[in-house]
Amino acid sequence: MKPFLVMQTDFGQGIATSTMRGVILSIDPHLRVFDNSHDIRPFNTYEASYALFFTLPFWPPGSIFISVVDPGVGTNRRASVALLANGSYVVTPDNGSLTHMKKVIGIQAIREIDQTRHRLPSTRKVDIFHGRDLFAYCAGKLASGVISFEEVGPSYPLDEIVLLPQLPVQVDGRTISGMLESADRRFGLVCSNIPYTVFEDRGIDHGDRFMVSIRHQGRLVFQETLPFLPSFGHVDKGEALIMVSETQQIQVAINQGNLSLDYDLESGPDWTIDLEAVL
Amino acid sequence: MKPFLVMQTDFGQGIATSTMRGVILSIDPHLRVFDNSHDIRPFNTYEASYALFFTLPFWPPGSIFISVVDPGVGTNRRASVALLANGSYVVTPDNGSLTHMKKVIGIQAIREIDQTRHRLPSTRKVDIFHGRDLFAYCAGKLASGVISFEEVGPSYPLDEIVLLPQLPVQVDGRTISGMLESADRRFGLVCSNIPYTVFEDRGIDHGDRFMVSIRHQGRLVFQETLPFLPSFGHVDKGEALIMVSETQQIQVAINQGNLSLDYDLESGPDWTIDLEAVL
Amino acid sequence: MKPFLVMQTDFGQGIATSTMRGVILSIDPHLRVFDNSHDIRPFNTYEASYALFFTLPFWPPGSIFISVVDPGVGTNRRASVALLANGSYVVTPDNGSLTHMKKVIGIQAIREIDQTRHRLPSTRKVDIFHGRDLFAYCAGKLASGVISFEEVGPSYPLDEIVLLPQLPVQVDGRTISGMLESADRRFGLVCSNIPYTVFEDRGIDHGDRFMVSIRHQGRLVFQETLPFLPSFGHVDKGEALIMVSETQQIQVAINQGNLSLDYDLESGPDWTIDLEAVL
Repeated sequence: MKPFLVMQTDFGQGIATSTMRGVILSIDPHLRVFDNSHDIRPFNTYEASYALFFTLPFWPPGSIFISVVDPGVGTNRRASVALLANGSYVVTPDNGSLTHMKKVIGIQAIREIDQTRHRLPSTRKVDIFHGRDLFAYCAGKLASGVISFEEVGPSYPLDEIVLLPQLPVQVDGRTISGMLESADRRFGLVCSNIPYTVFEDRGIDHGDRFMVSIRHQGRLVFQETLPFLPSFGHVDKGEALIMVSETQQIQVAINQGNLSLDYDLESGPDWTIDLEAVL
Repeated sequence: MKPFLVMQTDFGQGIATSTMRGVILSIDPHLRVFDNSHDIRPFNTYEASYALFFTLPFWPPGSIFISVVDPGVGTNRRASVALLANGSYVVTPDNGSLTHMKKVIGIQAIREIDQTRHRLPSTRKVDIFHGRDLFAYCAGKLASGVISFEEVGPSYPLDEIVLLPQLPVQVDGRTISGMLESADRRFGLVCSNIPYTVFEDRGIDHGDRFMVSIRHQGRLVFQETLPFLPSFGHVDKGEALIMVSETQQIQVAINQGNLSLDYDLESGPDWTIDLEAVL
Repeated sequence: MKPFLVMQTDFGQGIATSTMRGVILSIDPHLRVFDNSHDIRPFNTYEASYALFFTLPFWPPGSIFISVVDPGVGTNRRASVALLANGSYVVTPDNGSLTHMKKVIGIQAIREIDQTRHRLPSTRKVDIFHGRDLFAYCAGKLASGVISFEEVGPSYPLDEIVLLPQLPVQVDGRTISGMLESADRRFGLVCSNIPYTVFEDRGIDHGDRFMVSIRHQGRLVFQETLPFLPSFGHVDKGEALIMVSETQQIQVAINQGNLSLDYDLESGPDWTIDLEAVL
C-alpha cells in the first residue's frame, strides 16, 4: 500500500488545494490525498508548525505531509523534504514550519528539492504557486514511488533547519511559566507549551487553583484565579478553567465561551503564561 | 466492502477533524472516511440531529455516522452507538443528537461504549476530545470489523435515549402550524417541520397564498403573505416564497436573498411558524 | 479505473454537498468523489466558470466535473453534460458556467439531461436541489458506466451554449487592456484575462514598470505605478506588484496584504484593467 498524503496550507480549502490534489492524482490515480487544515492564518509559519505537531502523531507512520505556508515563495528560501524519526515525511518550505517536528518528533534527515527535476513542467513561467508546481508535484512523485527520498535532491545538515523562537517552560517556586502554543478561534481554547507531566510530577490534583496571567510582549492581558479540572462541563457555562489539552499540555478555556476572542489572544513567543499556585 | 464512515462535528474542518480521520486510518488504512458538516453551530445538538436527518437517508445503508457535538464531554453523559432501522449506525454522545433518528428513521438498538476497552490508549490523560479518543476510535474498530456491534458495550432501553423537545404539526381550520427545523446561513432558507404531504392531502396548489407568521418565544419576528411555488426563480429577485424543501418539508426563502440573516432566524422549538391560507 | 468526480457549488461545504456525495456513492461505492470549491460566491456563474478554468487542466483527462451554481433551478434553463476537448466532462446547468470551457479548453459535444430518466426517484416532489436530485445522480450514473454519454439525453448545437460576456485583451501603443477574471478574497490576488504571452511577446522584463488602472463600470477605483516581478517576496511587505498568476495571466497583488478587500474589487466584465508602460 502506498503512503497517504496529508495537505495543509494557508490557502483556504478551494480551487488552489483542488489543483494540488489534481496534480498528485495525475501522477498516480491510486494515491489517497487527505486534508489537514487549510485555515492556517495566512503567512503564520508558527501555526503551520503547531498544526503538524497536533495531527501528525495520529496518522500512520510513513505518511507524507505537505505543508505550504510560504510567505517567501519565489525567493531563495529552501524547499525541502524532511524524514522524521517515525518514518513520516514533511514536504515544506524550510521557513520555521519544521520547528515542532525537529524539537518534539525528531528529524532523521532533510533534503532540498532539486527544482530543475521536480517542478511541474506545464507551469514553468509561474513562480508564485509552489504548493501546486513544486510541493504537491514532488510529494506525489515520492508517494507513488517514482522517486526515492534520496532522489528528492541533496541532503543538508539538520542544524541548518530554520527554527522559530520558543520560550522554555520554567518552574520557579509556586509558579510555572511558558508560552502560548495555540489560540483556537472556534472554541477559544488557549493552549500553553507546559506539558501535563509538569503538573503530574508536582502532584497537582483536580480542584487545585492557580492565578493565571497571560501577557503579550510583557503587557498583562488576562489574569484570573482558575481551578484545574478534567473537562469543560465541570464549571458552569461561561466560567473559565484549566485542563489538559488534546496535546497533553496545560490549556485554559471558558465553558461554552471563547477565551481567545474575548481577550484577542494569539500564539507564539510574544505570548507568555504564568500559573501561580494558590494555597 | 467495509462500511463507509461519515463524520460531523461542531469543530470546523481542520486539525481536529484530521486527527479523527488519522485515528481511523491507523486502525485500518483501507477504510473510507467522509465529511458531513463540521460547521454545526457550536454545542447545538438540535442542529446535529437535523444534519443527520438531512443527509443519512442519501448514504448507503450500513454506513457508520460519527456525530460529535458534545457540550458534556468529560462528564457523565452516555457515549453510544445506535443501530438504525435501515442498518446504518450513529456513533455519538447520547445528548439529543439522536432525536430525528429515533422519531423519523427509527432506532433498532443502542449500546453504551465501554470506555475501558474503546479509548485510544495513547491519550489516556486527556478528557476533552472524545471525538478523537473515543468516538472515532470506536467507530473505526466497528467499521474495520475489529469489534462487532455487540462488543461496543452494554445495550440499554430505547426509551432512555435523550430526546430534544419538538413541537407537533397542527392543522386548525385554515392554519397549519409547526416549528422551524433549520435556518440555513448561506442561502437563508428557513425550513419548517411541516411535511409536504400536509399540503398534498389538503389539495394545496402552486399559486395558493398564505400569511406566514414566524415567532420566537411567542414574539412575532416575520409576517408576510407569500405564494406557494415550485422554486426560487418563480418570483423576482429579492421576493419571498413558500416551497418544498430538500427534505420534503415546507420551507420559506427569498429568491437570491437571505431570510435567516435578514430576520435573525434560528431553529428549534422556541421558533414557531403558522401558515394561514388566504382565500 | 473509473473516472474521478470533482464537485463545485456555491453551497458551502456541508450537509448539502455531503448528500450529493452520498447519492453518487449509493450508485457505485467504488467511485471517488473530490471537492473543487464550494465557496463560489452565491449565484455567481462567472466565478463558477473561472473555477473550472483554474482547476480542470490539472485533473486527469476523463474526469467528470459537477458544477452547481444554479440561480435558475426549477425553471426552464437547460441541465447539461458537456464533453470537453481533453475528454473530461462537466455536468452543469447551461447558464454561463461553461464560458471558459468553450473559449479556452474547447467543447466537443453537449447533451441536455433527460430529466424523465435521470432524476433521483425518491425526491420527485422537490424542485429546488438539482445538485443532489439531478446533477450528482446523473454524473454518478455516467461515472459508474450505468449510462453512456449518449444516454444522457439529446445533443444540441454548440452555439446554443450560454456564454457570459467577456472583454477582449487589447494592446494600444504602450497600454495593454483587459478585464478582471478573479478577485480572490483570501490573499486579495486580482487576476486579469491578459495572458502572460502578451508580456513575453513584447519583451517585457522583470523590473519594468506600469501604471495600473482598475475601473468598475468606467469609474477609477485603483491606480498605482507598479513593477513587474517574479513573486511576492521581491517587494517589501505591504507593497503591491505585478506578476504572472497561477493561470499564466497577468495579476496584481500586495505582498502579505489584500488588494481585493482594500479596494472592494470583484471580477467580471464590469471590471476593467489597463497597464500603461512607464518609460
